[in-house]
Amino acid sequence: MFIIAFGSVSLIYRSNLIIGAKTRKIWDNFAALFDQMMEFIPLTFMLGFFVTIIVRRWNDIFANLGWVDNTAITVSNYIRGTDEQTRMIRRNVIRYMVLTQVLVFRDISLQVRRRFPTLDSIVAAGTVLLNIHSINRTPSGFMLEHEREALCNVACKYSKYFVPIQWSTGLLVQARADGKIAADLLMNEIGKNIIEFRKGLALLSNYDWVPIPLAYPQVVFLAVRSYFFMALIARQSVLLDGKDPEQPSILYPVVPFVMSVLQFIFVVGWMKVAESMINPLGEDDDDFECNFLLDRNLAIGLTIVDDCYNRIPSVEKDVFWC
Amino acid sequence: MFIIAFGSVSLIYRSNLIIGAKTRKIWDNFAALFDQMMEFIPLTFMLGFFVTIIVRRWNDIFANLGWVDNTAITVSNYIRGTDEQTRMIRRNVIRYMVLTQVLVFRDISLQVRRRFPTLDSIVAAGTVLLNIHSINRTPSGFMLEHEREALCNVACKYSKYFVPIQWSTGLLVQARADGKIAADLLMNEIGKNIIEFRKGLALLSNYDWVPIPLAYPQVVFLAVRSYFFMALIARQSVLLDGKDPEQPSILYPVVPFVMSVLQFIFVVGWMKVAESMINPLGEDDDDFECNFLLDRNLAIGLTIVDDCYNRIPSVEKDVFWC
Amino acid sequence: MFIIAFGSVSLIYRSNLIIGAKTRKIWDNFAALFDQMMEFIPLTFMLGFFVTIIVRRWNDIFANLGWVDNTAITVSNYIRGTDEQTRMIRRNVIRYMVLTQVLVFRDISLQVRRRFPTLDSIVAAGTVLLNIHSINRTPSGFMLEHEREALCNVACKYSKYFVPIQWSTGLLVQARADGKIAADLLMNEIGKNIIEFRKGLALLSNYDWVPIPLAYPQVVFLAVRSYFFMALIARQSVLLDGKDPEQPSILYPVVPFVMSVLQFIFVVGWMKVAESMINPLGEDDDDFECNFLLDRNLAIGLTIVDDCYNRIPSVEKDVFWC
Amino acid sequence: MFIIAFGSVSLIYRSNLIIGAKTRKIWDNFAALFDQMMEFIPLTFMLGFFVTIIVRRWNDIFANLGWVDNTAITVSNYIRGTDEQTRMIRRNVIRYMVLTQVLVFRDISLQVRRRFPTLDSIVAAGTVLLNIHSINRTPSGFMLEHEREALCNVACKYSKYFVPIQWSTGLLVQARADGKIAADLLMNEIGKNIIEFRKGLALLSNYDWVPIPLAYPQVVFLAVRSYFFMALIARQSVLLDGKDPEQPSILYPVVPFVMSVLQFIFVVGWMKVAESMINPLGEDDDDFECNFLLDRNLAIGLTIVDDCYNRIPSVEKDVFWC
Amino acid sequence: MFIIAFGSVSLIYRSNLIIGAKTRKIWDNFAALFDQMMEFIPLTFMLGFFVTIIVRRWNDIFANLGWVDNTAITVSNYIRGTDEQTRMIRRNVIRYMVLTQVLVFRDISLQVRRRFPTLDSIVAAGTVLLNIHSINRTPSGFMLEHEREALCNVACKYSKYFVPIQWSTGLLVQARADGKIAADLLMNEIGKNIIEFRKGLALLSNYDWVPIPLAYPQVVFLAVRSYFFMALIARQSVLLDGKDPEQPSILYPVVPFVMSVLQFIFVVGWMKVAESMINPLGEDDDDFECNFLLDRNLAIGLTIVDDCYNRIPSVEKDVFWC
Repeated sequence: MFIIAFGSVSLIYRSNLIIGAKTRKIWDNFAALFDQMMEFIPLTFMLGFFVTIIVRRWNDIFANLGWVDNTAITVSNYIRGTDEQTRMIRRNVIRYMVLTQVLVFRDISLQVRRRFPTLDSIVAAGTVLLNIHSINRTPSGFMLEHEREALCNVACKYSKYFVPIQWSTGLLVQARADGKIAADLLMNEIGKNIIEFRKGLALLSNYDWVPIPLAYPQVVFLAVRSYFFMALIARQSVLLDGKDPEQPSILYPVVPFVMSVLQFIFVVGWMKVAESMINPLGEDDDDFECNFLLDRNLAIGLTIVDDCYNRIPSVEKDVFWC
Repeated sequence: MFIIAFGSVSLIYRSNLIIGAKTRKIWDNFAALFDQMMEFIPLTFMLGFFVTIIVRRWNDIFANLGWVDNTAITVSNYIRGTDEQTRMIRRNVIRYMVLTQVLVFRDISLQVRRRFPTLDSIVAAGTVLLNIHSINRTPSGFMLEHEREALCNVACKYSKYFVPIQWSTGLLVQARADGKIAADLLMNEIGKNIIEFRKGLALLSNYDWVPIPLAYPQVVFLAVRSYFFMALIARQSVLLDGKDPEQPSILYPVVPFVMSVLQFIFVVGWMKVAESMINPLGEDDDDFECNFLLDRNLAIGLTIVDDCYNRIPSVEKDVFWC
Repeated sequence: MFIIAFGSVSLIYRSNLIIGAKTRKIWDNFAALFDQMMEFIPLTFMLGFFVTIIVRRWNDIFANLGWVDNTAITVSNYIRGTDEQTRMIRRNVIRYMVLTQVLVFRDISLQVRRRFPTLDSIVAAGTVLLNIHSINRTPSGFMLEHEREALCNVACKYSKYFVPIQWSTGLLVQARADGKIAADLLMNEIGKNIIEFRKGLALLSNYDWVPIPLAYPQVVFLAVRSYFFMALIARQSVLLDGKDPEQPSILYPVVPFVMSVLQFIFVVGWMKVAESMINPLGEDDDDFECNFLLDRNLAIGLTIVDDCYNRIPSVEKDVFWC
Repeated sequence: MFIIAFGSVSLIYRSNLIIGAKTRKIWDNFAALFDQMMEFIPLTFMLGFFVTIIVRRWNDIFANLGWVDNTAITVSNYIRGTDEQTRMIRRNVIRYMVLTQVLVFRDISLQVRRRFPTLDSIVAAGTVLLNIHSINRTPSGFMLEHEREALCNVACKYSKYFVPIQWSTGLLVQARADGKIAADLLMNEIGKNIIEFRKGLALLSNYDWVPIPLAYPQVVFLAVRSYFFMALIARQSVLLDGKDPEQPSILYPVVPFVMSVLQFIFVVGWMKVAESMINPLGEDDDDFECNFLLDRNLAIGLTIVDDCYNRIPSVEKDVFWC
Repeated sequence: MFIIAFGSVSLIYRSNLIIGAKTRKIWDNFAALFDQMMEFIPLTFMLGFFVTIIVRRWNDIFANLGWVDNTAITVSNYIRGTDEQTRMIRRNVIRYMVLTQVLVFRDISLQVRRRFPTLDSIVAAGTVLLNIHSINRTPSGFMLEHEREALCNVACKYSKYFVPIQWSTGLLVQARADGKIAADLLMNEIGKNIIEFRKGLALLSNYDWVPIPLAYPQVVFLAVRSYFFMALIARQSVLLDGKDPEQPSILYPVVPFVMSVLQFIFVVGWMKVAESMINPLGEDDDDFECNFLLDRNLAIGLTIVDDCYNRIPSVEKDVFWC
């Protein structure tokens, strides 16, 4: 894109038909002036500081995406019992956690929003995929129909992310009352893990609520764009210290061209990285794969709390026993 | 603003009536001198470091605004009972937390101060809005009349932020004594959540008490302003390496003008971002919406501890059950 | 200061009496040489990095100044009883915490050292101010006479900051043994809060023990000072690219003067900020008001654990009840 | 490498046979142009910011490599008993932790992958080395055959890192049920330590999953490489301010050569450091020795929980007793 | 050092005997070339980033040096009893912690290694100093003879830092079994404090194991050194824009000399700071006084757990009582 634009302007500048020698002379002075003042725009400096801030934010988001593994292991160990009721409780505790994640991600990630455009679709996704599930175990079915109704019945004009989390922790209290959890301490430990999970999601949600002050990225991106627009004009002339070189050569114009293109690649490459990191939950290739994370969390979570429940290999002597 | 000022000075410089060729010559030398020494003021560098510090502080404030969700979920799970007394305790624990937030925010945020100019207004707000509450559930009524009196009766010449928090945790002890909380561990867990909330508010309050050393922002902002005042004068001349260009053209003066304006936009844009981030609890568009947060906290909190108390969907098999 | 010095040197330079045209010529070359080599001293860069490090340290100190509120609320809730003995225990737990803070601050803050030059003065301060206390409740009396003796009797050649903290936690164990605290868990919770408080003070004390390697601030401050000493001499000449301007004007010398003064203000302003942040417990206006903090901690702490003990407003329905 | 390339280009430039004086003149102008525009590529700035980000990431990885010491001490203290069954449980809890580490490291570290190309090799490694183990105690045998089968039987299409951790914590629950652990609190404490260990490994694994946005290192490394390619051509001429020096000397060309080589060493050295820190689990000399860590963790862990179990020296009076 | 070298080279340059005017002319051009290319080495930039990284690391080490105060207070409060056995247990728990610190510091600090060259010396130090101990209480005797044997008997080819920590925590389990500690919770609390202490030491030890990638400091220090070697040659000439000044004066050579010396002081001063911070456990004046810390830890620890055990001043009314 930049190359084509540069080429076109170059053509206008070089061709004797369009502009005369005198005009070109003026252009040269023009360019020299521009060049002299280009340093007013502290491009690399702004970009450097900007990228540093963005990277820190990106790291925060990354560290709080939310993984259910820890909670699932605690649930599996502390909620004891192999009857259907207990198994369902264990499974639901985890499923409600992932459901919260689905609800939060729908509001902050375009990928997930597209996958689940409505609350109904979260339920439906499950039923549709149920048929092929024995083969592939694609995790879906994050919510059941009666849960969707319960969720909709909660009268609250703010976002309802807290509802499934409350169900999840409520199930713990129930399990404790039924004696499925041996002690308050253990119930509390699971609860703390779930709250930890919720905190991470709340942080993601807050980052979405209060973005980096808008002016900041805009100022930086505008700076970069106008810098290169200037460069289109100012870098056509071949001047050594404001004078034409004594020995003419048609190779000269190649130099500013190559250097400008290189600079364009570097600076705009840097800026693109910043742009893609500013919204890491978008749809770029570099962005976090939120849908994958949701599927994985549900699958791993259910495997841990149900399939692997109490399946410890028999305790045997290891090879160093003596 | 800068554009107009620049235009005026430009007019003076260009018009032959006001100043003669010789004066203009002197002006040129003047400008060249200025230009040569402009680099003494390390504008972008100062701004860069300054913004980095500001952004870190802004992040800290943002992370400690205070959300009641976690505490509310714990309260809802650990204080058991559906009688009126228990419901009132649960509701009041949360309400007192939000009341603390109101008290703190009144002192650090202009928005909230305007909404609640006096302690009475915190009480009154509730009674006025009570009538329309069934339709809209606008959360208000952060304090009751007898609580306001109790608050005023506390003899303490320092800020009384701690009072409602003490009420809140005191209610926990009472609930534990009445057997509404099953174990000391669970009471302590809720208490730790409330203390965590208080710590965040205390940090906000301390940041307000000890601002960034005043000289620092002042030095930076003064640097930026005097830089551009200098620029008004120094950037009128069109000089290439201190000499007039050989080929005259009326287009030349456009260059320093455009570049200066661009630089002004970028640098001042950057500075404005810093200025608005220095006091994120102010009334700018980019600032945190404290009143929204207060209303939300009360509404969500009451919903969690009361409306959603023990309303867990029946435990059923999920779609992956096998 | 800088302005006067600059003026004097300027006078010497300009007056034809003192130095002749030839000497001035040499001076000009001299100045040009200096100017050319001034960039060897990377002033803004060093200052920028330096300030960043200082600000981080300042933040750490600020975050660990020590507030008793959290502990006081826990003490008030978990140590039950309204008899004199229990009240005294609650009050003393808090008072011993603040006493530790007094001892630590005496060694790191000049303000507090001046207020309490000897251990006796910590005791005396109380008795003197006791008379007016009913009116004003100025908190003092951090230590009683028999406590001072106990403190002095501890044989330890290192600093005895730990002694009052040990008293404080020891009182908890005693209260637990007497059944005033209901459970080990609650005693431990208070203890953890007190230890947390102690950790903050220990960090302050350590920061005082191991300052930023001395050479670093010295190198930076020496750099700034010699820079401006050089500037005094080098910025007298008015040279455009090493030559006198063609059109003479008596206005010219104003430019380097104004620019140098501006630079001096900015850079030295920046340095002064750094200097004052390096020792935030000193006596500058921007420094933390340690004496205020001590008074406040004692007053708030005693109010929380005693005056406000168990004074919770009656539990009533809030305005949103339905 | 760079030296040779520079020499070759230099030869072409200097030899009168290949290029004539006129061509060399053009080359000179060419070079001067390049030189003038080289500053467009903000080399050191990009590298500086880049290295800062890399170093932070490297620190994170380093802090989360995973050490079993803490858990082993807790296991040794809280799981009581000297019968074979208890000893096996203690040993297996630790061994399963290290096994998880092996599984994770196989996927993120080339060294470990080469050592354990298949799951079988993790088992086999043990049996092979078993013979020499009495002499050298080389820790291996991270997994037993029946455990490998149990691991393979877990149906889960995502990575199975969680399986041995679940075994490990499951053994705790079993030990608690058998009365080998005295209280739920102590079991929970060990469990929290194991989960902490798992969190560190999960972080390593996630860092491997989501690398630093690819464009960023690529842009930086491309910048460095093209910069030095340019330098090859542009730094052949010896020009002072675009003109030949008046006094010819054959020593002149040495200067740009030496300086370019020095710059090459510094910048590329810096870049190499960044490159090696970007993937600290690789096979360079500076990288973390993962295989050593695995062996050490198993050996130390088993020593702590078994060999040193309950071997406390008799309690005697120390030399300061009085 | 630099001054002398500069003087010598200056002498060669100035004296007409050694080099002629023509050679000097060549030298001038030479110097001008060097000067022009000196900016290739981004000295301050590299140093700035480098120092930032070093300072962060230094802070980490400083924060993890290890203080026993917290643990000692907990031990003193939670292990109850005044019989000899209990006193010995309390003393040994602390002594073993400090012993671990001695073992770790021996491997990472030259000061401590010199003080305790062998394990025997750790024992001996105690017996020798025992005689004067009643007067001076110099803390030594970190280990008893039978403990040294127990330590040596542990068969482990890796570092045995964990052994005394295991003894320490093992004593807690024993004290709990004997009823000296009232509850598992309290035992666990002390244990967590000890583990925390161990974590800090492990971090120090790991920092010693994996230094900052070696190439990085080397590249930076080489850059600084070669920069000033170049400066020796390049800064002899007095040239204004590549030409001799018109008015000769013997004062001129003073300028580059003074400026170079100043720059040398600043940059090398900065570098020295970095060098001394890279290894803060060395023997410089600015380094942490590890031996002092060991002595202090033992003395304070024993004082807290034994001398000050249960010596709380009688509970009396404070001066604000009403």
